Amino acid sequence: MRLRNVKDADKIVASSKYVINNPENYKGNFKKLFNKERKIHIEIGMGKGDFIIGMAKKYPDINFIGIEKYASVMVRAIQKLEEEELDNLKLICIDAMQIDEIFKKEIDAIYLNFSDPWPKSKHAKRRLTSPIFLEKYASLFVNSPHIVQKTDNIGLFAYSIMSLSQFGYTLESVSLDLEHENIDNVETEYEKKFMSLGVKINYLDAVKYLEK
Amino acid sequence: MRLRNVKDADKIVASSKYVINNPENYKGNFKKLFNKERKIHIEIGMGKGDFIIGMAKKYPDINFIGIEKYASVMVRAIQKLEEEELDNLKLICIDAMQIDEIFKKEIDAIYLNFSDPWPKSKHAKRRLTSPIFLEKYASLFVNSPHIVQKTDNIGLFAYSIMSLSQFGYTLESVSLDLEHENIDNVETEYEKKFMSLGVKINYLDAVKYLEK
Repeated sequence: MRLRNVKDADKIVASSKYVINNPENYKGNFKKLFNKERKIHIEIGMGKGDFIIGMAKKYPDINFIGIEKYASVMVRAIQKLEEEELDNLKLICIDAMQIDEIFKKEIDAIYLNFSDPWPKSKHAKRRLTSPIFLEKYASLFVNSPHIVQKTDNIGLFAYSIMSLSQFGYTLESVSLDLEHENIDNVETEYEKKFMSLGVKINYLDAVKYLEK
Repeated sequence: MRLRNVKDADKIVASSKYVINNPENYKGNFKKLFNKERKIHIEIGMGKGDFIIGMAKKYPDINFIGIEKYASVMVRAIQKLEEEELDNLKLICIDAMQIDEIFKKEIDAIYLNFSDPWPKSKHAKRRLTSPIFLEKYASLFVNSPHIVQKTDNIGLFAYSIMSLSQFGYTLESVSLDLEHENIDNVETEYEKKFMSLGVKINYLDAVKYLEK
């Protein structure tokens, strides 16, 4: 994603009512930050927020947390949220590498949308479905680990299928052309653009069944 | 595949030195039909034989059996074999549904290349990676079940990933663009045609580890 220099992005992010500052203080207790105790789903790399905001509106019975590394990107989501009153959405501005320092046994599902594909094999470890990240995610889940991914990048998608499968995940749902599937879908900014260009979107829903 | 009416196809097939007639008589003993006892790999739906003939030439230390339902198609492979002397290749003309009546604990790998995608969901059972077929294949293998698939059809490919994963297979290798991967590959008739048209070929290599 191209980053624009957004003036005072850090300040805007830190002062938003949607943003959780010092998230490490809530480890294991994120449910207390929401009005109602519900399952928590997170998106890692929420970008400008279209997906997580759309999900929060569509599923009021789930609590959502959007995670984004760059304040200069998250500020776009905060601008979109100014006219909204969503009590089931929070945002955290951290690097995905820190994810296991923030959460502990409290997440039900992770969404990974149009993550950086890191196409060079020497950078494979940085992909958000690499064994390094799958290991980090393991400590986050309250129940069976559950990951939902969308990407236009066929290299990343093939890698994710292998990595998840070899890590013990079962591929419950897979599509190589999401637009033409009968799958419930909230579109991201990227997705709208890609679909308008005729680019096929790949989708997977994977669960790691425990004590199977 | 378009079937042409090939005169005397049944006779040509039945009289070929490559073809195993009455294969049910060899159940559990196919290794005895080859000069040398080696691992046996089979291709279900070999079509005109480019893949299985190419594999037999490339891997002389593996014994191959090509399976095709239609004599009128298999006869094309037999014509190609007239000038060859391959002692590690045999052919069987049967329907894939009969596969578990023919083999028992003697196969090391199954290749499924450009199988009929049966796109309508009501026909999903007929796909060669449906649970019905995976159940049949289970009795064929001498070691861990091992399936290698290639297809241009993204619907069939997504289905195969789900079906194999849910049946307990691990996706060891996956590509959504085989031509640009560093994967050892023998092309089929279809594949040559598709690649020349710029169509992407999907590839998977799946193993079901026993007593994992």
